[in-house]
Amino acid sequence: MSARRILLSEADLIRQIQGVVGLTKRVSPRIRLAIGDDAAAFRPRPGRLTLLSMDALVEGVHFDLQYFTPEDLGWKALAVNLSDIAAMGGEPLCFASSISIRKAGSLQFVRKLYRGMMDLAGRLGVALVGGDTCASPHGVFLDLAVIGEVKETDLVRRSGARPGDILYVSGQLGGSAMGLELLRNRCRRTRASHYLVRRHLRPVPRCDVGRLLARKHLASAMIDLSDGLSTDLYHLCESSQVGAVVDAALIPVASVPGGRQPLLSKKPLQYAINGGEDYELLFTVPSQFRRRVPAGVGGIPLHEIGVITGEKGNCWLQHQGNLKKLAPGGYDHFAVD
Amino acid sequence: MSARRILLSEADLIRQIQGVVGLTKRVSPRIRLAIGDDAAAFRPRPGRLTLLSMDALVEGVHFDLQYFTPEDLGWKALAVNLSDIAAMGGEPLCFASSISIRKAGSLQFVRKLYRGMMDLAGRLGVALVGGDTCASPHGVFLDLAVIGEVKETDLVRRSGARPGDILYVSGQLGGSAMGLELLRNRCRRTRASHYLVRRHLRPVPRCDVGRLLARKHLASAMIDLSDGLSTDLYHLCESSQVGAVVDAALIPVASVPGGRQPLLSKKPLQYAINGGEDYELLFTVPSQFRRRVPAGVGGIPLHEIGVITGEKGNCWLQHQGNLKKLAPGGYDHFAVD
Repeated sequence: MSARRILLSEADLIRQIQGVVGLTKRVSPRIRLAIGDDAAAFRPRPGRLTLLSMDALVEGVHFDLQYFTPEDLGWKALAVNLSDIAAMGGEPLCFASSISIRKAGSLQFVRKLYRGMMDLAGRLGVALVGGDTCASPHGVFLDLAVIGEVKETDLVRRSGARPGDILYVSGQLGGSAMGLELLRNRCRRTRASHYLVRRHLRPVPRCDVGRLLARKHLASAMIDLSDGLSTDLYHLCESSQVGAVVDAALIPVASVPGGRQPLLSKKPLQYAINGGEDYELLFTVPSQFRRRVPAGVGGIPLHEIGVITGEKGNCWLQHQGNLKKLAPGGYDHFAVD
Repeated sequence: MSARRILLSEADLIRQIQGVVGLTKRVSPRIRLAIGDDAAAFRPRPGRLTLLSMDALVEGVHFDLQYFTPEDLGWKALAVNLSDIAAMGGEPLCFASSISIRKAGSLQFVRKLYRGMMDLAGRLGVALVGGDTCASPHGVFLDLAVIGEVKETDLVRRSGARPGDILYVSGQLGGSAMGLELLRNRCRRTRASHYLVRRHLRPVPRCDVGRLLARKHLASAMIDLSDGLSTDLYHLCESSQVGAVVDAALIPVASVPGGRQPLLSKKPLQYAINGGEDYELLFTVPSQFRRRVPAGVGGIPLHEIGVITGEKGNCWLQHQGNLKKLAPGGYDHFAVD
């Protein structure tokens, strides 16, 4: 074995990661053991449920390194998982990462990737506590497990929506899918497309929105918008055994900067309905609590977009006087063209 | 989107998984939410630390589907993670899985993979609580996050070994590496090689051993043998800032069935020292507790193999009257031939 040339040992990688992690201050005294042992250890907060979310990003499926920098990738991998914790009304505590990368250039790549990840982690006070890194003969695979916490009485599920509840969404929709199309058309960093592109590369999970809705017991059901409004609404309705009617005129569509519209193949509303990866929150509120829903949380607006019905599994879109069936049209990784 | 032919939707996959999971009885009433929401939720046990371990298996790095059945793969992915929890003295509670597979034949593959995983999970009373499945243009990638629990006073780290402590190992070593070589030589299922091959394909994590050592406060440091004795001993010594002397004659080498030795390229002792993936536990015990260490736990023998020294970072092998430097010689994924 001694004759083998080591390009990058796991010990080196761990040191690299610790170097980046060391730059961020110790986040919580409840983290008892982080990187460097067989497992991480933390003290759960008494009286809280522990949440576990796990979501992977696979090269060629979720991202293309032609337009994702390693920093973007690290940020996004954490963001999509934090978004799941937000959708339960939880508060994120810590996370572990599992990374598989090609051998060549791996040290530099890993350092940048962790820098992007720790940038978001630092802003939200979430600690990196462990993980695993290995070389892969294939593309990059990035998987995170995020731990969050929530009071049992604050937990929001997908299954709590009831007929008559009002349907809401946070932020604006369609921006990520439009940003992706602009990236594919190589309009990466022009000033005009910057906002949309950033929505795709660096989504900001709506942790504060989810926490507030849960703490005030406003949301009866909640899900994050990863697959697109039409698909995730269907998931929520299926879990709650209800239906929904969405008013197209009420959907907050991300605005397209001047001159960019010709570069997009579809109308903005279509991106807002079927485009995925906005990582906004879709939630329902019993109608008697309608007045208590704030107009926004920390600068993120909350929009009423429709109503829950008793028509189990059926979702409708009210658009220019017509009622159209709203079929799940978001992204499905197993779909084949 | 409606024109796209769906080979296998994520909803189908989730149903497949739930079908397999449904076969196992509900493991713990503390699991509040399992598969089907944005995150899993469980009640932590009061007064316990929560442990989080994350380890991936990558096709072409950790396994070859020429000799791993999907069931073997599912079993092993869970086993290697449970082994990490065992090495901390913890008790496993639940886990989430993240799986990336090729499109073709995926439904059948996923069902079998989960069957193998749930076979081990059922034996150890560990609940599957969530995860993520996506198609991959590359090979199979399988990543698990396992949650365990341990009393804070029972937690065993890598860093607690002190000079004079006795070094122990559970079970027998080298069997997994020998099994792998037999598999590569296409001696898969002959009766004689069955034991060694099974050591590679279906390792059994030493949860009971780890728990007992932790509960009785016998182990001062512990690590699981994933990379091989020489490498993992070095990890333990580096964390504890100590050295070690191992007596080669005391190493419990897995026995090679009659007639199989000519198929192996190295001597059994070499597999025991440098071969990885035995998933036994390597631990140290302060010498005053030596008599309290049982000969075995649940049929798994515990063997004294050496002693911890103050010679920081230096490990030695006493072999046939000579003292040889024991360099980390186990597997490193980033090593290049």
